[in-house]
Amino acid sequence: MKRIINLIYSMKIGFIGLGIMGSAMASNLLKSGHKLFVYNRTKEKAEELLKQGAVWKDSPATLAREIDVLFTMLEDPIAVESLALGTDGFLNEMKKGSIWVDSSTVNPSFSKKMSEKAIAKSIRFLDAPVSGSKVPAEKGELLFLVGGDKIVMEEVQPLFDLMGQNAVHIGDHGKGSAMKIMINQLLGQSMLAFSESLSLGMAMGLEKKMAMDFLLKTPVTAPILEVFRARIEDENYEPNFPLKHLQKDLHLFTDTAFELNKAVPLTNAAKEIYAQAKQKGMADMDFSSIFKFINE
Amino acid sequence: MKRIINLIYSMKIGFIGLGIMGSAMASNLLKSGHKLFVYNRTKEKAEELLKQGAVWKDSPATLAREIDVLFTMLEDPIAVESLALGTDGFLNEMKKGSIWVDSSTVNPSFSKKMSEKAIAKSIRFLDAPVSGSKVPAEKGELLFLVGGDKIVMEEVQPLFDLMGQNAVHIGDHGKGSAMKIMINQLLGQSMLAFSESLSLGMAMGLEKKMAMDFLLKTPVTAPILEVFRARIEDENYEPNFPLKHLQKDLHLFTDTAFELNKAVPLTNAAKEIYAQAKQKGMADMDFSSIFKFINE
Amino acid sequence: MKRIINLIYSMKIGFIGLGIMGSAMASNLLKSGHKLFVYNRTKEKAEELLKQGAVWKDSPATLAREIDVLFTMLEDPIAVESLALGTDGFLNEMKKGSIWVDSSTVNPSFSKKMSEKAIAKSIRFLDAPVSGSKVPAEKGELLFLVGGDKIVMEEVQPLFDLMGQNAVHIGDHGKGSAMKIMINQLLGQSMLAFSESLSLGMAMGLEKKMAMDFLLKTPVTAPILEVFRARIEDENYEPNFPLKHLQKDLHLFTDTAFELNKAVPLTNAAKEIYAQAKQKGMADMDFSSIFKFINE
Amino acid sequence: MKRIINLIYSMKIGFIGLGIMGSAMASNLLKSGHKLFVYNRTKEKAEELLKQGAVWKDSPATLAREIDVLFTMLEDPIAVESLALGTDGFLNEMKKGSIWVDSSTVNPSFSKKMSEKAIAKSIRFLDAPVSGSKVPAEKGELLFLVGGDKIVMEEVQPLFDLMGQNAVHIGDHGKGSAMKIMINQLLGQSMLAFSESLSLGMAMGLEKKMAMDFLLKTPVTAPILEVFRARIEDENYEPNFPLKHLQKDLHLFTDTAFELNKAVPLTNAAKEIYAQAKQKGMADMDFSSIFKFINE
Repeated sequence: MKRIINLIYSMKIGFIGLGIMGSAMASNLLKSGHKLFVYNRTKEKAEELLKQGAVWKDSPATLAREIDVLFTMLEDPIAVESLALGTDGFLNEMKKGSIWVDSSTVNPSFSKKMSEKAIAKSIRFLDAPVSGSKVPAEKGELLFLVGGDKIVMEEVQPLFDLMGQNAVHIGDHGKGSAMKIMINQLLGQSMLAFSESLSLGMAMGLEKKMAMDFLLKTPVTAPILEVFRARIEDENYEPNFPLKHLQKDLHLFTDTAFELNKAVPLTNAAKEIYAQAKQKGMADMDFSSIFKFINE
Repeated sequence: MKRIINLIYSMKIGFIGLGIMGSAMASNLLKSGHKLFVYNRTKEKAEELLKQGAVWKDSPATLAREIDVLFTMLEDPIAVESLALGTDGFLNEMKKGSIWVDSSTVNPSFSKKMSEKAIAKSIRFLDAPVSGSKVPAEKGELLFLVGGDKIVMEEVQPLFDLMGQNAVHIGDHGKGSAMKIMINQLLGQSMLAFSESLSLGMAMGLEKKMAMDFLLKTPVTAPILEVFRARIEDENYEPNFPLKHLQKDLHLFTDTAFELNKAVPLTNAAKEIYAQAKQKGMADMDFSSIFKFINE
Repeated sequence: MKRIINLIYSMKIGFIGLGIMGSAMASNLLKSGHKLFVYNRTKEKAEELLKQGAVWKDSPATLAREIDVLFTMLEDPIAVESLALGTDGFLNEMKKGSIWVDSSTVNPSFSKKMSEKAIAKSIRFLDAPVSGSKVPAEKGELLFLVGGDKIVMEEVQPLFDLMGQNAVHIGDHGKGSAMKIMINQLLGQSMLAFSESLSLGMAMGLEKKMAMDFLLKTPVTAPILEVFRARIEDENYEPNFPLKHLQKDLHLFTDTAFELNKAVPLTNAAKEIYAQAKQKGMADMDFSSIFKFINE
Repeated sequence: MKRIINLIYSMKIGFIGLGIMGSAMASNLLKSGHKLFVYNRTKEKAEELLKQGAVWKDSPATLAREIDVLFTMLEDPIAVESLALGTDGFLNEMKKGSIWVDSSTVNPSFSKKMSEKAIAKSIRFLDAPVSGSKVPAEKGELLFLVGGDKIVMEEVQPLFDLMGQNAVHIGDHGKGSAMKIMINQLLGQSMLAFSESLSLGMAMGLEKKMAMDFLLKTPVTAPILEVFRARIEDENYEPNFPLKHLQKDLHLFTDTAFELNKAVPLTNAAKEIYAQAKQKGMADMDFSSIFKFINE
């Protein structure tokens, strides 16, 4: 164990993708004394980290040459592919034997494809998307859902520990991504089903607060919804998890179902109701604003 | 309190509707020494209760003349209306001041209509549908969701206590029914969303038992689903809560939304997927068989 | 034939339900010299007909005592049931052997129920809903879809001829209503599918007018949509056929499917999208405004 | 005009993708005396054309070096991309100034991407998917929906004339593909809406043949459905247009809507009902078998 920790502390770490989630995660790595190289499409988002001691690199490729472990936390498969394989991409430049951990939420088939590209270059790959949003990311309380070789995961474990509460090995390449889209599908559906229930309850004459309190105590409601009680009560939809991102995750789920010749009619319906809300101007609100869309 | 209990013990109770739920509830009333008059469309279902001491009446009307409190536990609004107001119906024959508690799952608007019919005859009315299925009914652990006058509810409370763990006053007439259909909508949606998640998980290569265990532990899954783990794992769909009944409850929900000019697109989608399963021969299986419908 | 015409001209006709459609139909009966007795919930809507010579009756019951053939053209099953069987309802007062033609759009099961009520009173019944909206009604160019006894239909044929271009015998009681809801389901679906196609076409960069012209010429588009070209082009949604009525007809369709244990998932989805538009303030616009709902 | 015809007759043509549609189209080019080079992933499908005089090439790349105009008729964007840009792909090997006509059904955004790749190599590009299935392809009666430069289209017009009844210039790059997915969306929706209408009609007691005849005459039904009357009547679902291909086209439509931030809830519902039919074993039946899926 001590040996691994020493290994880790001598490792150089790269982080690409410094949005809300990525910068919080990178900051937690930095705080524990790791040497951290960072890159982001827009440099401004890196400023805070640079003040904390991170080292800026001008391209994914130049960053790649420096590091032993790379984390990516990007918006979607297109962004990952472009930064990995496009002009000045990192994959061609990483050292043999180094590790790429992709924490972006992507299709499992995309994770598998990336793992194959990595392996062809003798780079070790993990798909390790996270469950949790802004606040857990800041507190280092994320849950990593890991797909790939368990040995590689154990090597990265001390870094997962700095950013998260837990890291679970789900299975081989792509399985971390698989579990991630399953969880976000359940999240999106729970919120929407709850919104329809509450909204009709109000139309039937129930008082909003009483109805919410009652439903949130019953075992037919997902416990996570408790977190959103205040938002829905106050109709304050400052984004914690933007609606457009949840909608994109539902799209990844239905797209994967298409690839695998499975029908998922309820998820498709949910995806499209979120798409309607997105079209009606709610893309950047918190996804719990789906209540507002349903209710008004 | 003692006064009320004495009042109750001198009361004569009627029970109409002796299906799986109704006979278990009636049995719990009987066990505590109450005088119980019963009626059911098919007499065979009453045999067990008659052995336990219940008194058979040949029609709702003749039963109505004997009793102070009447419970009805029927399949749907049509059945309730027919036994209440049809030929030999009970409503015309109940004593002034007596109480009718309808525990059937019906639309709130129907409960309100029944309360008006009852009040016009100086009969006091509660809508008090129950949350819980066969086993809780047998153990006297149901949850009553009560709409109507709180004073009337308090009078009936000792009887609710015999049949249930709890009785909650939700609001005036129809509000008990309102909360009931909200809860069953959440139940139906949770099960279906979980089924799509698990089914795609398996198609993505996850092992069924591992995936179930993992999802059931996450806060995005409604805790009630734990109860159905064994059914889905073993694909044993002996009916506890038949799929056709859950589908009917979703229909009550969407029908009420139509009456109130509200759109509930996700619930409509869910209702119709259960309708497909019903059409494909699963009407009398447990509603958790929706997993089988989605997965195969 | 001549004999029947003479019979008809000696007949006294009643008309209940004088909305946009009903008053246009009644006017066509009146113009041909028939003696016409009318009733409507709000008397103002009858004024124009009274000037043309119609005779006002103060209740369905008093009207019923005068006439040999009664037409009803009401909003929904609840309205028909209330005027037929409620206080001062017409059914108890109609002469034995007289004919009731219900042209309202209702569920087939409701038409069957009404036919049974009528037959029990020795009154002959036809369900004869119409295909066509305001302008065809005024021009006497409606299509009657008739369910019931063919002999009875032949007797009424001269009156159908005054109001419509054609009357088709679809089958026994309820079959006219059956065909009506099938046709309106196709109408609603065509308009909505076309709206999604056109809207995405515009988002893909096609010019609206060109795309409409092209699609309307292809055989994958229902010819009736040509009628609505100008409305969608100019976004002028003055009601010809109000969206809430189309939505109600889709509800009759899905409700009938529920009664018959059939799943109709696409129609349910369509019904609920129109319900969303209704909720967002489009209830009284023409139903072609669903394009606006989808597109904005 | 004559000049162009001469030019065309001196042109060498390539054809890649010899499925049902592609081989019928290629055969029509061959019959008019053109020199035709062909390639297909499985050579057997080319045998008939080789007997008719076509010249086999062992790879897209070797074929590309020979020809002035290339037609591709492939299953989906992945197949097109792989044969164009993969190992031994054709795009790197085509002559400057030559023309690539992609008749595959693909997303408009993919067509635009291909046009950019082609233009970067000084190759001229048209997206020209076809409307029509097996029989029109054999008879040379297809409709080409063309996106790209009108001048280029005029140059290819004589070849379109050999394979089709008509070629319409819809707009610039991607617009042919746009119109194609709009038309197939309408086709899929019409068939499914009709199936639900007919199926419920039968459940309401209408005779199947009568109901079909009636509906097919009304203006609420898309005329193309007449073509499928016999299939549905006899429940003979030999594939003319396989259900899985229609389902894929609906997927291209909804995927494009996702790219453009548009919600298309009805099309998503339709797509997923076809996906259910696909999952239940109907992938290779004619798409009109959706009636069977709905009805049974």
